[in-house]
Amino acid sequence: MKALVLSSGGIDSTTCLALAVEKYGAAEVMALAVYYGQKHTRELDSARDVAEYYGVTFRELNLAVLFADSDCSLLRGSTEEIPKESYAEQLARTNGKPVSTYVPFRNGLFLSTAASIALSAGCEVIYYGAHSDDAAGNAYPDCSDAFNEAMDRAVWLGSGEQLRIEAPFVTKTKADVVAEGLRLKAPYHLTWSCYEGGEKPCGLCGTCRDRAAAFAANGVKDPAWED
Amino acid sequence: MKALVLSSGGIDSTTCLALAVEKYGAAEVMALAVYYGQKHTRELDSARDVAEYYGVTFRELNLAVLFADSDCSLLRGSTEEIPKESYAEQLARTNGKPVSTYVPFRNGLFLSTAASIALSAGCEVIYYGAHSDDAAGNAYPDCSDAFNEAMDRAVWLGSGEQLRIEAPFVTKTKADVVAEGLRLKAPYHLTWSCYEGGEKPCGLCGTCRDRAAAFAANGVKDPAWED
Repeated sequence: MKALVLSSGGIDSTTCLALAVEKYGAAEVMALAVYYGQKHTRELDSARDVAEYYGVTFRELNLAVLFADSDCSLLRGSTEEIPKESYAEQLARTNGKPVSTYVPFRNGLFLSTAASIALSAGCEVIYYGAHSDDAAGNAYPDCSDAFNEAMDRAVWLGSGEQLRIEAPFVTKTKADVVAEGLRLKAPYHLTWSCYEGGEKPCGLCGTCRDRAAAFAANGVKDPAWED
Repeated sequence: MKALVLSSGGIDSTTCLALAVEKYGAAEVMALAVYYGQKHTRELDSARDVAEYYGVTFRELNLAVLFADSDCSLLRGSTEEIPKESYAEQLARTNGKPVSTYVPFRNGLFLSTAASIALSAGCEVIYYGAHSDDAAGNAYPDCSDAFNEAMDRAVWLGSGEQLRIEAPFVTKTKADVVAEGLRLKAPYHLTWSCYEGGEKPCGLCGTCRDRAAAFAANGVKDPAWED
């Protein structure tokens, strides 16, 4: 196995998986999805569907116990509602702190978990789908370029120089991600982004708004909204 | 809660816990121990005993599933024997690679896990007991000063500048750790270091040899060997 892709079943990680499969071939790629107590477990079904579409090895972990004491609004244990606003609107009230859907050090945890599994499987690289829209204004600080550089260095050094992190979109926008995915014919019809656990995307949460804007910027209809 | 201490029940983490309790007081300190498939589960009993000695909150996690595919000799699933040699003797054969008891990205994983839990509990710092003897010659690359700096930066940035890592011994030797622990009257009689799962320490594995040398350097008998 050459590459491990952190897969949430959304647009960004599905595009990462498309890139990894293009570069290494499906037989050398593993997708890793994590249940961490999120309300929108539907994304895990999407992660599995996307892995099956590409014919890559799929693994799912349950790390929910680590967030048992978190008050993050994304989690089932929280009494907080998921904001029905854009990230920009939310950030206007957080005084530079992360938004309420920030899961404590989630990307660092997922990358470290992925590193332990990837090293055991002989992989040389981990892909993940952080992009600059999510990092903007410190909404999700674990999506920033600076965080990614530090984490890549930690994984490289801490693995005895055996493993790297690849974040192909960390300086790009979500619209850039969709453009790349359209080029790669990524199976966006299988993906799920909405933070709510409903049958259809709510269209109002931060990630629904970002997703809609990214498709609109590419002049393409989001298949999630097709009948 | 102010500080989370990664606790393995050994000399280094017990001395970290002593430092954290000295600085913050027992009521503001949490100890976190991890079962990851290690043969020497006895260390977890020691971690619990040390936490009880200090009266700090104790939490234990099971992350063994992450190492199910690892061939690390420290793990129960491995058919490899734990080397009965010093680290220097082992490193003479590894061509600059980590020793066979290196657990893939263990410290990175534990620190990230600790970060998620620490942020949920409102902590501002994570302590862990990496020291320079373990990092020497790349035996355990996830104990090095460079790794620690990168990981601290990743946790600081990825947490939205809410959490730091403290590795008080990262540039010191294990003899220095014991000297500090003796000053703090750390309960070394409760600790366990040996990689083998026996009743008494084997005295031959890398960590037994390091521990013996550290006590000898301080002119003190190791309480683990007292009758």
